[in-house]
Amino acid sequence: MWFTSDNASGAAPEILEAVLRANAGGARSYGGDEIMARVTARIREVFEAPEAAVYLVATGTAANALALSLYAQPWTALFAHVGAHVATDECGAPEFYSAGAKIIGVGGEHGKMTSQALATALGRLPAGDVHSVQHGVLSITNVTEAGTVYTPAEVAALTALARARGMASHLDGARFAGAVVATGASPADLTWKAGIDVLSFGGTKNGCMGVEAVVLFDPAKAWEFELRRKRGGHLFSKHRYLSAQMEAYLEGGLWLRLAAHANAMAAHLADGLAGVPGTRLQHRPEANMLFPEWEIGTHARAEARGARFYPMPAPEGREAARLVASWSTSREEVDSLIAALKP
Amino acid sequence: MWFTSDNASGAAPEILEAVLRANAGGARSYGGDEIMARVTARIREVFEAPEAAVYLVATGTAANALALSLYAQPWTALFAHVGAHVATDECGAPEFYSAGAKIIGVGGEHGKMTSQALATALGRLPAGDVHSVQHGVLSITNVTEAGTVYTPAEVAALTALARARGMASHLDGARFAGAVVATGASPADLTWKAGIDVLSFGGTKNGCMGVEAVVLFDPAKAWEFELRRKRGGHLFSKHRYLSAQMEAYLEGGLWLRLAAHANAMAAHLADGLAGVPGTRLQHRPEANMLFPEWEIGTHARAEARGARFYPMPAPEGREAARLVASWSTSREEVDSLIAALKP
Amino acid sequence: MWFTSDNASGAAPEILEAVLRANAGGARSYGGDEIMARVTARIREVFEAPEAAVYLVATGTAANALALSLYAQPWTALFAHVGAHVATDECGAPEFYSAGAKIIGVGGEHGKMTSQALATALGRLPAGDVHSVQHGVLSITNVTEAGTVYTPAEVAALTALARARGMASHLDGARFAGAVVATGASPADLTWKAGIDVLSFGGTKNGCMGVEAVVLFDPAKAWEFELRRKRGGHLFSKHRYLSAQMEAYLEGGLWLRLAAHANAMAAHLADGLAGVPGTRLQHRPEANMLFPEWEIGTHARAEARGARFYPMPAPEGREAARLVASWSTSREEVDSLIAALKP
Amino acid sequence: MWFTSDNASGAAPEILEAVLRANAGGARSYGGDEIMARVTARIREVFEAPEAAVYLVATGTAANALALSLYAQPWTALFAHVGAHVATDECGAPEFYSAGAKIIGVGGEHGKMTSQALATALGRLPAGDVHSVQHGVLSITNVTEAGTVYTPAEVAALTALARARGMASHLDGARFAGAVVATGASPADLTWKAGIDVLSFGGTKNGCMGVEAVVLFDPAKAWEFELRRKRGGHLFSKHRYLSAQMEAYLEGGLWLRLAAHANAMAAHLADGLAGVPGTRLQHRPEANMLFPEWEIGTHARAEARGARFYPMPAPEGREAARLVASWSTSREEVDSLIAALKP
Repeated sequence: MWFTSDNASGAAPEILEAVLRANAGGARSYGGDEIMARVTARIREVFEAPEAAVYLVATGTAANALALSLYAQPWTALFAHVGAHVATDECGAPEFYSAGAKIIGVGGEHGKMTSQALATALGRLPAGDVHSVQHGVLSITNVTEAGTVYTPAEVAALTALARARGMASHLDGARFAGAVVATGASPADLTWKAGIDVLSFGGTKNGCMGVEAVVLFDPAKAWEFELRRKRGGHLFSKHRYLSAQMEAYLEGGLWLRLAAHANAMAAHLADGLAGVPGTRLQHRPEANMLFPEWEIGTHARAEARGARFYPMPAPEGREAARLVASWSTSREEVDSLIAALKP
Repeated sequence: MWFTSDNASGAAPEILEAVLRANAGGARSYGGDEIMARVTARIREVFEAPEAAVYLVATGTAANALALSLYAQPWTALFAHVGAHVATDECGAPEFYSAGAKIIGVGGEHGKMTSQALATALGRLPAGDVHSVQHGVLSITNVTEAGTVYTPAEVAALTALARARGMASHLDGARFAGAVVATGASPADLTWKAGIDVLSFGGTKNGCMGVEAVVLFDPAKAWEFELRRKRGGHLFSKHRYLSAQMEAYLEGGLWLRLAAHANAMAAHLADGLAGVPGTRLQHRPEANMLFPEWEIGTHARAEARGARFYPMPAPEGREAARLVASWSTSREEVDSLIAALKP
Repeated sequence: MWFTSDNASGAAPEILEAVLRANAGGARSYGGDEIMARVTARIREVFEAPEAAVYLVATGTAANALALSLYAQPWTALFAHVGAHVATDECGAPEFYSAGAKIIGVGGEHGKMTSQALATALGRLPAGDVHSVQHGVLSITNVTEAGTVYTPAEVAALTALARARGMASHLDGARFAGAVVATGASPADLTWKAGIDVLSFGGTKNGCMGVEAVVLFDPAKAWEFELRRKRGGHLFSKHRYLSAQMEAYLEGGLWLRLAAHANAMAAHLADGLAGVPGTRLQHRPEANMLFPEWEIGTHARAEARGARFYPMPAPEGREAARLVASWSTSREEVDSLIAALKP
Repeated sequence: MWFTSDNASGAAPEILEAVLRANAGGARSYGGDEIMARVTARIREVFEAPEAAVYLVATGTAANALALSLYAQPWTALFAHVGAHVATDECGAPEFYSAGAKIIGVGGEHGKMTSQALATALGRLPAGDVHSVQHGVLSITNVTEAGTVYTPAEVAALTALARARGMASHLDGARFAGAVVATGASPADLTWKAGIDVLSFGGTKNGCMGVEAVVLFDPAKAWEFELRRKRGGHLFSKHRYLSAQMEAYLEGGLWLRLAAHANAMAAHLADGLAGVPGTRLQHRPEANMLFPEWEIGTHARAEARGARFYPMPAPEGREAARLVASWSTSREEVDSLIAALKP
């Protein structure tokens, strides 16, 4: 009963088989492998972006920090939701890769920046004042850290505000497959058609071993990305293993099937939670993460029965938790968790 | 006939099997997996270093840059051989991770710093002069970039010079297994007993998919390392796959068997090269890399026959190459290469 | 009628005379001048801190950023009031000098952090969580950006919270003389006796041409400071001109006389403002800065009559301003400003 | 008898008078002062560069590091003479301001890079190889650290090599006035007409208190420079004092008169040294610095008689020194030094 995070799950069989296949014989190293050429072509197809530059790294933090560093000059501000992974969970990786950009937290309920909050934050930075940091880059997370999703129109509204200030927009898509499934929008609709310039396209949380693609819809900064990736120690010598994972992930829509399963398991879990006395959800469940609040004592009871999840800050007199379903979560595990939570 | 680099090879079957085994079920992420606990214990045993702190990353550049950043303050100099990987092949990763340390190239034939050259370079930095960068850290590479090896006594002589200046010493052991095999020295003799403070212990080139251990013989900087690793984007969420590779690599001496094979294939290749007219080796072959010089036209001939290797700068009227054998190089491949090189 | 900032004023005659005196003959450069030795001794005396290390730079931003960089490791957070100069007016200098530390804004009315707000902010950073930045350094500003002052007890309460988290405390004393005058506390009481580890001791705004002392009450990091200062380009070759300013500033209590005058002129101005219809002060005037709010149209009228000051954000239907008195502000200027503000 | 450095001298009376004049009344801070507008206009005139952007800082290290950071991306190499100030005497300031660029030392006798040596160094960096740092920026020093000068043709030959690699060129002109006097070339001929993109135009060593202009012949990076200057803590609040120094320095050719005097005193000193038995000059004296070698015992004798200078590395059995004349060196001082050196 692992509900701590989607990264507590293993890798899907299709991914592992691809890795085994890729192992045979010699291959060009450092991204020159033949599989990578196919990955690039496939991602361009999936995103309807024939000019996009595509690169692979092994962690989400690397994908985000490298992507952001292309646009966040050291003397600029990076605007992100106050609870965004880049703002709170990467030990300052964006600051490191950008040589000191300042992250400005933008508010909004349920993990989503509002246009109003973003406009206010942008307006507080006086344009052209040398004493202040400058407008740098916008980073949106979809699926959000609260398990909610932005629609293409919501993304477009935020990126329009950024563009009006001369800023590029980044999408942290560590759970991007889940957002595609949840919104029913196309990958293009959720990204470049909605004003996104660079995407961290996650594979790890959704059934890969460790691979994320950075997709530059504007390839002008492709070479700079390559240099930053190498300099950051993120260019793999035996790159074929990254390529193989990503190829298998995209093959036949595997990535969407895996995310659809995770979302479905979360929905099933939400149904079950409705039957746990004194329990309510803090955010509307839209993808694979639930944030229930429940009665004191529930944590201890469930953990004693083998459930694993993270506690969250809760209102006085209550407990709260994060429950994450993954591609590998089974209906039985969900049912066992519900049983474990009940008195 | 891949002789470009040991990273053109795939992964050994034992490594892949371990990865598959590690896949089952949920696991704690970010290095909290049970396999990692065993890896730490095993590395401490192998290095006779019960206090050592052990961390895994996926690339050699990350291992080196993170290890060096513990000791190379931004205003210091990092002393390394002029041809060291950290000096020439990492796109400035040590400068990036150290926030601007200066690499000072130290000379020496056949890829090896001499004590005399190091002493001279150290002496050129006036101690306590605020206008100059300060003494920072020494980095030694073993197996060297020229395919030669340092003995424990040679390492100790260099680290003694460093220590006399208050400097720590790092060993770039991307091919450390090959050095152990070539010298017959113990892992401890080649590292902490010879004055090494931190080791990049390579797995990738020697049969793994992508894993390197950083071994801190002095664990005082362990927590700082963890923060730097996370901040650099090098902490894997599904860390179990790194752990599994490293565990299998050490299991039953696999790492030494793989390196012994690579070194033996290089020796067999050296024998064969002796029979190629007009060919000589630039450096004494001691591990798995050979640097032959030969007659003009040899490159084209061999490549046309399917051989793959890197050309190297050569004297006027000659050609030169780097030939690297790996854990997966077969005797037949070597023989085919020799045949391909011959007129 | 310059009330924009205390840095719109010139230098006091005593300061200029000292600079002229220092000009004669040759002198050791880079801080080796004899005047500097006297400055160090004098500052130790003034602060009752016989072990303190003392360094001079020419700007407040340099003083703050260098001082903070001693304690703000790249992967840590720097806690400061949301409106602190280091947070909003230095174009990211603390981030630059610290190689990427994250500034966390702490709230509090009238420019002053409350202990409660600081405790909450500190508590939000989970200790020992590698995904989050770590506790780094506290920075307090006295006189605050709102023209208010902290008492020694208030400073001590904040630094105690910092110390409990293992954090050092910095005081941005760009207007430190004004705080000493306003509180009647001794320099020692307002700094190290209240838990301050490093002080930016301002001269520029209070009658010097351009000089700030950084006072390290704990000299353990003195040599590191010297290296950081040089590396930042802030070590003056003809250092004697900085030394001469600071010596004259301290001589016979000039620094306190100048600040007492500035504070008195602000008090006189506050009295006058009480007679301007529809005017109120946003913060209690405690030093040399006033933040009045007044009726719309007042700005235009006063500026047309030659008054110079900065407008500030105001509530709907009102105007607001910052008015700063300096060592050189005359009673007549204040009276003229009051007259210019009146209908 | 101060011959240690030109920065051991004071400031010229014209400079001090200008500072005193600038002191009266209020002034706009942070470079908005009226004097600065005139300085910009004057420097454009002097350099025949009507579009140039001009900024002032207080130290040569700041001028160099900020100027270089405009062109030296973190993953690039900065090419400079092995003995250049930026390479050896700034405690890594260029590395700091560029976030980690790598300085590559280029050889050449008498402080001057040769085209051949530069071409070789450039050629060693393989273009477009992601494993290596990239071509970044060229930095030339004129007057050189050996007291020699480059002619406009020599500068142009070097910058042409840089341009062919897509690199910009910087001139470290800490002693630029001396180079103009020595070569008889115009300021434009020695800079942008010879391919220089950005100049550090020194005032401090040649009679100012502390001021250097950074002249951007291509103003495209002007705003970036302003941000970098502020972020580095190098934007003066009471900027008028920098402006006043620079205005007076240029007024009526003062800068050239001061340098002509310094060069003449060095020439007089060279004549005198010819009469000191066993003495020879290591480099041809072309500006205001001499590098004599002499018999052992000469140092001690001269110092005992009150002479101040820096010893330099010398051949076995000899002593060597650096002797620097300044705008304030008198004929009598030179004669006294000669007398002090003689047996």
